Amino acid sequence: MALNIGVIGVGYWGPNLVRNFTANQRTHVLGVSDLNPERLAFIAARFPGVEITEDYRDLINNPKIDAVAICTPVFTHFEIAKAALEAGKHVLVEKPMTSTSSQGEHLMDLATQKNLVLMVDHTFLFTGAVRKIKEIVDSGELGDLYYFDSTRVNLGLFQHDINVIWDLAPHDISIMEYLINARAEAVVTTGADHVGNGIEDVAYLTVYYPGNVIAHINVNWLSPVKIRQTLIGGTRRMVVWDDNSPSEKIKVYDKGIEVLQTKEKLYETLIQYRTGDMYCPKVPQLEALMMEVDHFADCIEKGEKCLSGGDLGLKVVRILEASEKSIKQRGKEIRLG
Amino acid sequence: MALNIGVIGVGYWGPNLVRNFTANQRTHVLGVSDLNPERLAFIAARFPGVEITEDYRDLINNPKIDAVAICTPVFTHFEIAKAALEAGKHVLVEKPMTSTSSQGEHLMDLATQKNLVLMVDHTFLFTGAVRKIKEIVDSGELGDLYYFDSTRVNLGLFQHDINVIWDLAPHDISIMEYLINARAEAVVTTGADHVGNGIEDVAYLTVYYPGNVIAHINVNWLSPVKIRQTLIGGTRRMVVWDDNSPSEKIKVYDKGIEVLQTKEKLYETLIQYRTGDMYCPKVPQLEALMMEVDHFADCIEKGEKCLSGGDLGLKVVRILEASEKSIKQRGKEIRLG
Amino acid sequence: MALNIGVIGVGYWGPNLVRNFTANQRTHVLGVSDLNPERLAFIAARFPGVEITEDYRDLINNPKIDAVAICTPVFTHFEIAKAALEAGKHVLVEKPMTSTSSQGEHLMDLATQKNLVLMVDHTFLFTGAVRKIKEIVDSGELGDLYYFDSTRVNLGLFQHDINVIWDLAPHDISIMEYLINARAEAVVTTGADHVGNGIEDVAYLTVYYPGNVIAHINVNWLSPVKIRQTLIGGTRRMVVWDDNSPSEKIKVYDKGIEVLQTKEKLYETLIQYRTGDMYCPKVPQLEALMMEVDHFADCIEKGEKCLSGGDLGLKVVRILEASEKSIKQRGKEIRLG
Amino acid sequence: MALNIGVIGVGYWGPNLVRNFTANQRTHVLGVSDLNPERLAFIAARFPGVEITEDYRDLINNPKIDAVAICTPVFTHFEIAKAALEAGKHVLVEKPMTSTSSQGEHLMDLATQKNLVLMVDHTFLFTGAVRKIKEIVDSGELGDLYYFDSTRVNLGLFQHDINVIWDLAPHDISIMEYLINARAEAVVTTGADHVGNGIEDVAYLTVYYPGNVIAHINVNWLSPVKIRQTLIGGTRRMVVWDDNSPSEKIKVYDKGIEVLQTKEKLYETLIQYRTGDMYCPKVPQLEALMMEVDHFADCIEKGEKCLSGGDLGLKVVRILEASEKSIKQRGKEIRLG
Repeated sequence: MALNIGVIGVGYWGPNLVRNFTANQRTHVLGVSDLNPERLAFIAARFPGVEITEDYRDLINNPKIDAVAICTPVFTHFEIAKAALEAGKHVLVEKPMTSTSSQGEHLMDLATQKNLVLMVDHTFLFTGAVRKIKEIVDSGELGDLYYFDSTRVNLGLFQHDINVIWDLAPHDISIMEYLINARAEAVVTTGADHVGNGIEDVAYLTVYYPGNVIAHINVNWLSPVKIRQTLIGGTRRMVVWDDNSPSEKIKVYDKGIEVLQTKEKLYETLIQYRTGDMYCPKVPQLEALMMEVDHFADCIEKGEKCLSGGDLGLKVVRILEASEKSIKQRGKEIRLG
Repeated sequence: MALNIGVIGVGYWGPNLVRNFTANQRTHVLGVSDLNPERLAFIAARFPGVEITEDYRDLINNPKIDAVAICTPVFTHFEIAKAALEAGKHVLVEKPMTSTSSQGEHLMDLATQKNLVLMVDHTFLFTGAVRKIKEIVDSGELGDLYYFDSTRVNLGLFQHDINVIWDLAPHDISIMEYLINARAEAVVTTGADHVGNGIEDVAYLTVYYPGNVIAHINVNWLSPVKIRQTLIGGTRRMVVWDDNSPSEKIKVYDKGIEVLQTKEKLYETLIQYRTGDMYCPKVPQLEALMMEVDHFADCIEKGEKCLSGGDLGLKVVRILEASEKSIKQRGKEIRLG
Repeated sequence: MALNIGVIGVGYWGPNLVRNFTANQRTHVLGVSDLNPERLAFIAARFPGVEITEDYRDLINNPKIDAVAICTPVFTHFEIAKAALEAGKHVLVEKPMTSTSSQGEHLMDLATQKNLVLMVDHTFLFTGAVRKIKEIVDSGELGDLYYFDSTRVNLGLFQHDINVIWDLAPHDISIMEYLINARAEAVVTTGADHVGNGIEDVAYLTVYYPGNVIAHINVNWLSPVKIRQTLIGGTRRMVVWDDNSPSEKIKVYDKGIEVLQTKEKLYETLIQYRTGDMYCPKVPQLEALMMEVDHFADCIEKGEKCLSGGDLGLKVVRILEASEKSIKQRGKEIRLG
Repeated sequence: MALNIGVIGVGYWGPNLVRNFTANQRTHVLGVSDLNPERLAFIAARFPGVEITEDYRDLINNPKIDAVAICTPVFTHFEIAKAALEAGKHVLVEKPMTSTSSQGEHLMDLATQKNLVLMVDHTFLFTGAVRKIKEIVDSGELGDLYYFDSTRVNLGLFQHDINVIWDLAPHDISIMEYLINARAEAVVTTGADHVGNGIEDVAYLTVYYPGNVIAHINVNWLSPVKIRQTLIGGTRRMVVWDDNSPSEKIKVYDKGIEVLQTKEKLYETLIQYRTGDMYCPKVPQLEALMMEVDHFADCIEKGEKCLSGGDLGLKVVRILEASEKSIKQRGKEIRLG
């Protein structure tokens, strides 16, 4: 029997979830809600049979519904997710999970207590590229990590309620947290607002990890070109991921340095270079959202550990929150828990 | 009559200056000095007739010499340049000018007082690409600047005495200071040392300018790929400069945003996008060092204002010095004078 | 009142036409036919209300139908298009129009005689890129044409009934004939079959035009990389069109040569180079098939001259036919009409 | 004891040979000749001690000289090389070896008879890239070859005495003949002359090899962009060589097709695709001319088999000669020996 899903919010992203939950054999979209009747009409025309309502509580209170997907503005996530969990529904919530980390902790506690799945829609974790990189990192092929350096810039859609950090950086932060097996220590974020409305359109995040591992994220709504590039340096190999490249997304370089201690000069280190072949692994062409929807069903039905669960979602929110504090104080270091 | 030049230090970079001062009709290399006799022998073999000495003071005290070029390690620049200026010689000093800003100020005062030329070898300012970008910025074509964002990474030569900031960032800082007609306010720099010798190999500099203009520089000795890319955003147009591209170094995009104030909702700003053609100006193929050597002669003989004089050199050192302080305190904001 | 359309053949390409004729306000898909009941069921499920039949004659004989689109294998085009025209229907036929030029001439005569629209689905002519290039060529900006040189290679879908010439080259030939305002004189085509079934998978076409204008087309089903690149050389400017590039499809170079006759040596020509800026015009993001469907309606309703009419379709078939003859005789020159 | 070399012709390329023969420990440049006294003065200034003469016969008749390098216009190669061989000198001759194949055969016979080295300066064979590709081809990694497809275009230096085939194609032909272990059967060449002086500036060569192996070379002096790209298709793997790429010159793709014979339909072939990883081997950064000069010394002193000997040079000339005949007859097939 299929899981019955309610989709709350069918503006820009919601319809994609409706489509994927519909296409999946294990899930069925029972109803959708939106404050805007036009959006509801749009869904009704394309997905006949789906119940529509302007009040999300109709979905949450519907005993036939097993789980809800929440695709509303960020500031509403907490209230809706909380209500849904309290009503005993599993939750898939749009990224970022909440506006504050205390909200996120509250949701986590609630989900644990109620034994419900709380998953965050960090879609990138379900792409063929990120899964391949995860595989490479976990295999130990790169050795120990040196750094993670990501650039995500283009002439982007300005958001009215959130700055470029909350808009674009959740992608990079979720990937970084997924790949780096350590607890982020501190955040330093700089940036600027060029419109004058207090909403930064350019931001540079530095995240410190233990062992001198450093991460950096460059996000920008005002770039004339679209760049989606991530460099990952390791002691043994290094990866360049260019998400714009249609056929050569991931390149693994057999390059690095070797640090030698010379006998004569005890205090001097000698650094040698090593360069070898590069290879470009075949990246499976997965439909990320289809994989994600399937994983959500697995988590509910089989109790699988959630790849992008509330714990990851909370880590992302903590870094976003710290970045927000830091950027408003010109890069003041904000320590994480 | 040609200017007589003494070149102090003929390790890696010095021979290039010897070659260019020799090729230029207006200058003549009279002598070179180096602590290493092998390097002197190397020069003697290639440039017969040039006097060689292990003691730079021989050049400084030689009354026939009009000017010296200093291509020694950074920590020796101040002592040598000071001695040269005191001896009445014009000075061209390798970048960065000095190790501290107070040293730089001292040299500036000395040069002014003695009415001597003090020039810093920021070679990039003499390339066709930077001159073309300067022309574009000064023409007003870009409108007001939003940001300057530069990436200079590769599997680089680790330095033993200076970190990646002092090694690579002087290029970007000198270009940035040359292009941005404003006084930098503060610096926030993060980074990491992966060898464990206290010398950072990865660094991220943010420089705040008045009017929300922001600059960012990403330098890295541990990148598997070589990237030399600078994005410059303006209110009217935007530039992408890819110095690795042999034929399309500079691209000027007719792209931007327009901020409208809506009548009804006074506090809401409406942001619209604009995208048009891109063009790629022909960049003159200048030999930068040849241009620079010629400019040095102009400054001495015709009293021309120095494009990369001690004032620019000092601004660069101030930002490097602030970056050094900042990186050691995890991105603490360091205000500039 | 909308034009009633019948779509014959709904395998790979046909459904795209069904979708576009359905989306267009001026056209209505009344029925579709296909020999394969599964394909008909596929259409019936997606486009409820459309009549389905296994016999295309049902569509041709249906008096309510104004026009048919033919998306069947090439060798069937003639028979079906002929029957449709004889039944008084306007025709949009998949490229290439027919298997032979005499078939094409027959259809042309029939369409003229019956005063019906005969259009060939050379979709590329309706893309933003080709329209922009056409505009540039027609404006005289390039001067006189020197050459047209196109490469269209990838690890392609091997066809069972036609070789790589009939499969891929119609795109390039239709674009070339659209852009070059002259009558092709002769064809020389070389190539090879590596499977051993007589179906060439690699081919190189040269087409001679008057005035030393030369065109070359490189098509290949066995390339490890996908290349879609066209160079167009002119006396004043030159164009490079890279259809794979998402944002910089067309580049116009202000480059060329100048031929001077020297006074002293009357018989010697002196050739000088000229290089200037490059620009990259904004290419409108048109949905080509939507534009084409709309143009088909215009041709029928307003009697507009067809951009990709039977005359162009016939020129393409003549060149394909000549290429086929040439390739089988190792590049023997085949003169065109 | 070093081999004494005479260099005949020091216009554009000759000085590079003088420099490399001088730098090599095993060779010594004793004298150079040129018809132009200015070029001789140029050499005399840079290479003091080298004897200069306007008459190449002074070098050929000099008993101290062991070998000559001939860097004069193509039409003079035969006369000079013949005289040199007759005088008992080993010969390194600029590419292409001669203007006609009968001249080439004559030189080959003479060298064999006199037991002298006759080498052609096909420099590309000594680059790291070509040596790596040769290694890959010879290892059997690519399987059987399907095709060799090379593009060498740019806004090039127009030659006064030879067309674009004789100017650019010798590079590709020598590489192709070096890699393909078979005897070329026939040539079809098309092209055009846009200046009107009978010297083609655009040309397309097809070379047929046994077993349906096909080669194609696209050379063009009138291209706005510089392309140096070669695709090599094999049954098991495929290579793309981009000589413009500074760091990823060679890419080896694990891609191909598999041809299956289906049992049921005996006459139908089923073709399946295979795509896997790509890798980019490290290419040794060799100074090609230095390697070549060293190889020349090895051939003379150790009697090593010449990598680019008269036999290869003759094969190249035969293909050039056939191309010339073919292009003048609009792609008439010219059979080779």
